[in-house]
Amino acid sequence: MNKLQVGIIGASGYGGAELLRLLLNHNQVEIAGINSRSYIGKPICELYPGFQEISDLVFVDEDAVIAASDLIFASLPHGISEPIAKKCADANKCFIDLGADFRLHDEADYQAWYNVPFKEKALHEQAVYGLSEIYPEQIKQAKIIGNPGCYPTSIGLALYPLMTTNYAFDEHVIIDAKSGVTGAGKELSEGSHFPNVNEAFHPYKVANHRHTPEIEQTLTEMHKQKVQITFVPHLLPISRGIISTIYVKMNEAINFDDLYQHYVDTYKNHTFVRVLENGKCANLKYVQYSNYCDISLHYDTRTHTLVLVSAIDNMVKGAAGQAIQNMNLMYGFAEDEGLKLIPPSF
Amino acid sequence: MNKLQVGIIGASGYGGAELLRLLLNHNQVEIAGINSRSYIGKPICELYPGFQEISDLVFVDEDAVIAASDLIFASLPHGISEPIAKKCADANKCFIDLGADFRLHDEADYQAWYNVPFKEKALHEQAVYGLSEIYPEQIKQAKIIGNPGCYPTSIGLALYPLMTTNYAFDEHVIIDAKSGVTGAGKELSEGSHFPNVNEAFHPYKVANHRHTPEIEQTLTEMHKQKVQITFVPHLLPISRGIISTIYVKMNEAINFDDLYQHYVDTYKNHTFVRVLENGKCANLKYVQYSNYCDISLHYDTRTHTLVLVSAIDNMVKGAAGQAIQNMNLMYGFAEDEGLKLIPPSF
Amino acid sequence: MNKLQVGIIGASGYGGAELLRLLLNHNQVEIAGINSRSYIGKPICELYPGFQEISDLVFVDEDAVIAASDLIFASLPHGISEPIAKKCADANKCFIDLGADFRLHDEADYQAWYNVPFKEKALHEQAVYGLSEIYPEQIKQAKIIGNPGCYPTSIGLALYPLMTTNYAFDEHVIIDAKSGVTGAGKELSEGSHFPNVNEAFHPYKVANHRHTPEIEQTLTEMHKQKVQITFVPHLLPISRGIISTIYVKMNEAINFDDLYQHYVDTYKNHTFVRVLENGKCANLKYVQYSNYCDISLHYDTRTHTLVLVSAIDNMVKGAAGQAIQNMNLMYGFAEDEGLKLIPPSF
Amino acid sequence: MNKLQVGIIGASGYGGAELLRLLLNHNQVEIAGINSRSYIGKPICELYPGFQEISDLVFVDEDAVIAASDLIFASLPHGISEPIAKKCADANKCFIDLGADFRLHDEADYQAWYNVPFKEKALHEQAVYGLSEIYPEQIKQAKIIGNPGCYPTSIGLALYPLMTTNYAFDEHVIIDAKSGVTGAGKELSEGSHFPNVNEAFHPYKVANHRHTPEIEQTLTEMHKQKVQITFVPHLLPISRGIISTIYVKMNEAINFDDLYQHYVDTYKNHTFVRVLENGKCANLKYVQYSNYCDISLHYDTRTHTLVLVSAIDNMVKGAAGQAIQNMNLMYGFAEDEGLKLIPPSF
Repeated sequence: MNKLQVGIIGASGYGGAELLRLLLNHNQVEIAGINSRSYIGKPICELYPGFQEISDLVFVDEDAVIAASDLIFASLPHGISEPIAKKCADANKCFIDLGADFRLHDEADYQAWYNVPFKEKALHEQAVYGLSEIYPEQIKQAKIIGNPGCYPTSIGLALYPLMTTNYAFDEHVIIDAKSGVTGAGKELSEGSHFPNVNEAFHPYKVANHRHTPEIEQTLTEMHKQKVQITFVPHLLPISRGIISTIYVKMNEAINFDDLYQHYVDTYKNHTFVRVLENGKCANLKYVQYSNYCDISLHYDTRTHTLVLVSAIDNMVKGAAGQAIQNMNLMYGFAEDEGLKLIPPSF
Repeated sequence: MNKLQVGIIGASGYGGAELLRLLLNHNQVEIAGINSRSYIGKPICELYPGFQEISDLVFVDEDAVIAASDLIFASLPHGISEPIAKKCADANKCFIDLGADFRLHDEADYQAWYNVPFKEKALHEQAVYGLSEIYPEQIKQAKIIGNPGCYPTSIGLALYPLMTTNYAFDEHVIIDAKSGVTGAGKELSEGSHFPNVNEAFHPYKVANHRHTPEIEQTLTEMHKQKVQITFVPHLLPISRGIISTIYVKMNEAINFDDLYQHYVDTYKNHTFVRVLENGKCANLKYVQYSNYCDISLHYDTRTHTLVLVSAIDNMVKGAAGQAIQNMNLMYGFAEDEGLKLIPPSF
Repeated sequence: MNKLQVGIIGASGYGGAELLRLLLNHNQVEIAGINSRSYIGKPICELYPGFQEISDLVFVDEDAVIAASDLIFASLPHGISEPIAKKCADANKCFIDLGADFRLHDEADYQAWYNVPFKEKALHEQAVYGLSEIYPEQIKQAKIIGNPGCYPTSIGLALYPLMTTNYAFDEHVIIDAKSGVTGAGKELSEGSHFPNVNEAFHPYKVANHRHTPEIEQTLTEMHKQKVQITFVPHLLPISRGIISTIYVKMNEAINFDDLYQHYVDTYKNHTFVRVLENGKCANLKYVQYSNYCDISLHYDTRTHTLVLVSAIDNMVKGAAGQAIQNMNLMYGFAEDEGLKLIPPSF
Repeated sequence: MNKLQVGIIGASGYGGAELLRLLLNHNQVEIAGINSRSYIGKPICELYPGFQEISDLVFVDEDAVIAASDLIFASLPHGISEPIAKKCADANKCFIDLGADFRLHDEADYQAWYNVPFKEKALHEQAVYGLSEIYPEQIKQAKIIGNPGCYPTSIGLALYPLMTTNYAFDEHVIIDAKSGVTGAGKELSEGSHFPNVNEAFHPYKVANHRHTPEIEQTLTEMHKQKVQITFVPHLLPISRGIISTIYVKMNEAINFDDLYQHYVDTYKNHTFVRVLENGKCANLKYVQYSNYCDISLHYDTRTHTLVLVSAIDNMVKGAAGQAIQNMNLMYGFAEDEGLKLIPPSF
């Protein structure tokens, strides 16, 4: 059987390199080509020595990748994916964008937070938001997917069951999130300089992070009513993972066991979301290097406050893993093909 | 001039050892003796090799420490300090407790969260809560001090200026706190086993931590009106420091610059509280190994939510440093004597 | 086709748990049972939450595991494997020991370093030392395998090509090795207490570590002449991996390019040993969570000293991965079945 | 009494900033000015927020610093200190160089390893090598000091007692050293990018590091006979500290207790060198943030190999602390003035 030919544009960044790492062990695909504007002609293993003797792929021209592929993944800064998506659409190729260009439906939001307009409006209308567990049917039909951001993935999955119940709660949700340093990418920066990060911890972009409109869009869509958030990300002195601690003030005392059961039921047929046993706390240690999203639920009876904690690996479920999960849905492969990654625990 | 004779009971734990480390460089005191029930006869440098050739102190009997000292510090699990405080009071010695026994004023609270009653009620009536910047006058007169917990210190200092203004806000405050592992102490435990902590991150005791009543007591006292919190601590994979991210929903839009200025004014004469320049974020890196509490203020105009971030070294301002600051106040020493510790920044 | 039934005895420790994690993704085997004396009746995911919803295996009795399995892995403290090996041999089952009991050929060595005699001498005569790349033919025929220690694996592979050339060198070799903390196991200890390890670094068991006789046995056997080592292990404040830096004094100036080429040639058909390009340095980052052993060669022309550096993941190539590689050899599976693990690089 | 006026040139780097941090707590000096070519006009606390509200120093012109100071420290890349030393000499000011320009006595060595000649030969003749414990008399008389490199400090102190005995040993010494990341400085680089360093470990500049000639110069001078080294540094995923593990092959079996006693005797009057009790191992944890050099001795009786392990904080004893210790010697201050830093142990 012929394997699906896939290409990666922007494969020199962390998201692209992680995609390659996972796709190399996917039984239904073949890597047709990888691209990076800055490294054309260089082998991937020069940038990421982990690939030595495993992959001899060399970065090639963007058009060559598109031509050779049935499906193209892009992992690029915002504004750069859109014209590539156009080329893919014109060539009738499928496109999964790990960047920000196809996540926001509302051009005004995009312009407000990214300072650029939509240039290819028709493509944005087609694009599907790839939160795999929530929009599987749309994903199966999609030709263009906006793969969710890492924070929005962890938050959207944690809040989905609540947003679709009849419980009444304050539609202003507090989200205190913490991410590992790979989230800041491969580029050198003061913020990723080891002596600045090691044994350090601090918030950043307080109530001002670009994932804010994406999260609000998702929650509002789920809840069918406007949801606002105060979103404060922090930088963890570790390599991988995101913990989001989410505070929802319930309008009145709830039966927590019922809500817990609703969470369990919602996700019982979803391989990659694990609702933890009551009393346990989600922990990065048990999702790293895997595609799992672990969710723990807690209830402060004194103040009727629901506390949701979700843990993902920002590079896997928060980026490359979910992109592959979306590909699996699109092409009818087993949802966990290439993603049977068991978290190491130590 | 004769130096003040000080003793440490429970000097084998982290809090006690840090006290010793700092007191050895304090110009007005002399260490009269150190005690640890489990290590009598052993030198401190066997437990903490950092003291080699610096201190040849050996753990001795508790009564010997009390007899030799003018002021006794205790750093012990709850329930164990109280009888020692009684001995000190009977011998007319001053007492600073780094444990939990003298922090809560209300016996019912203490019993509810610690499962033991007050045995020496008279002592509890005398005891002063040692949040140095907030209660300096009472501390100067005190003979017994309940030194605040690490989380309550970081939170009390961050909220004090707000609690004493006329702004109207939701008296249910969300506090998402993160602590380094020394907070869990010297005892071996699964939770402090390196492969479990390293590259991990998780909340614990969600809405259920024993510092909750202490924080609510402090805030309520400051605000002169009941304040409730939802308090969620997390374990950071680092050794030292606490970041508390605090969310206060304002009843209406505020002039943030005014509030910021009120913070600056409140702390302008307090050496150890630094209100960061607008736009900066508090960061553990810049308080570790010092007695500073750094506070940054942020305001989410979209939701009228005030975000306060405070950073301390849990072992210094959150324990031993503040205890020494209290001693300095009690004995009329310069407030920063023994505490001129400049954070390393790297 | 019926899959090979495998059991794990001592599956509650890190070595056993890692074996389980890898075997669950091995296409040719089925887990027949797992055992741990201390946890009978408990599910694996209670100890290692990474397995939640992935494996519902529960620890059972040792004899049940043996009865249900064709091949038994044991990961146990020294002295405990030997009687289990006997049971397996009596039941005509194959046995791979990840512990120390079947590594040393010479009973006197074993007794000198472990203070116990061989009890089942016949088994020791049959046992094959499972350094996969070096003894593949013997491994294919073996019924009992002593899987090498983590340090000896990294050192044996690095020195093998040199030991089998005609270069003359000082047969006293200096080995400075550094291991992550998982090497110390799951048991709580002062040496694995986070505040003791984090931001720390120190040697331990200087010239006195139990892997010394195993390393000397291997080198002497390869070199067909007595080789002695001075072996100094250090504890790295990371979870996984071993770097061994090895110093060999050559008797005279050598042509380094020739020796380098000999290394390349020796390992060119071995998937799991990567001789790095000249000028590169082996790095834990590029072998973690994989079965690779990376080797870099360096030559100090000023002193005719060869410096070999090898990097492995102590839990994979240094334990569970190599055990599976040995199983693959024994049963004629593809050597990399279950081991196509690409190191993450970040 | 008038305090000594000191200036720091190159105060924006880690070495300079650490100097400032320590000098601010030195009772006999006053900071006359700080300089950094790239940051003139900026306050130090913008670069290092740890200094907020502690120092309001602003970077000024180099000449202004020299004019205002009695003693000038420089912490600069090689080649840049020499002309500054000249200016200081011409103005009859003392000069302590934390960089490489005045460490090597032999111009040929300097040229071979740094690719530049000596330009001010007279200054080099005057310059004293500032290994405080070894050359105190020369330091007391010096006007120009070449402060030793971090690796050479740790190695020189560890080998000095051996080099000055009559034991016969192989004059080719193997040194396996490990340094924290602050050793690589404040400049951004791939090698200091958090995701590349965290959970990583690797050697670098194998047998090729620029500290090699400095170490050989020191050992040869001590031993009064040529000593050669094979020096292999490694990068530790921690912020601070250097462990050097040193292997010396003795020509015949030695009485180890005698040698150990010789070490104890050599350093018994030196505050900052601690020869650890027999059986203990030097550990970074117990020297960090202090000026101590801890040395442990070990002997491999099987191979007559002496193993010396030394631990320092690379920023303190390996740079700023030793520079201050040298200043204390030059000006007759107490040797430990400003350096009574007790290592935290946790």
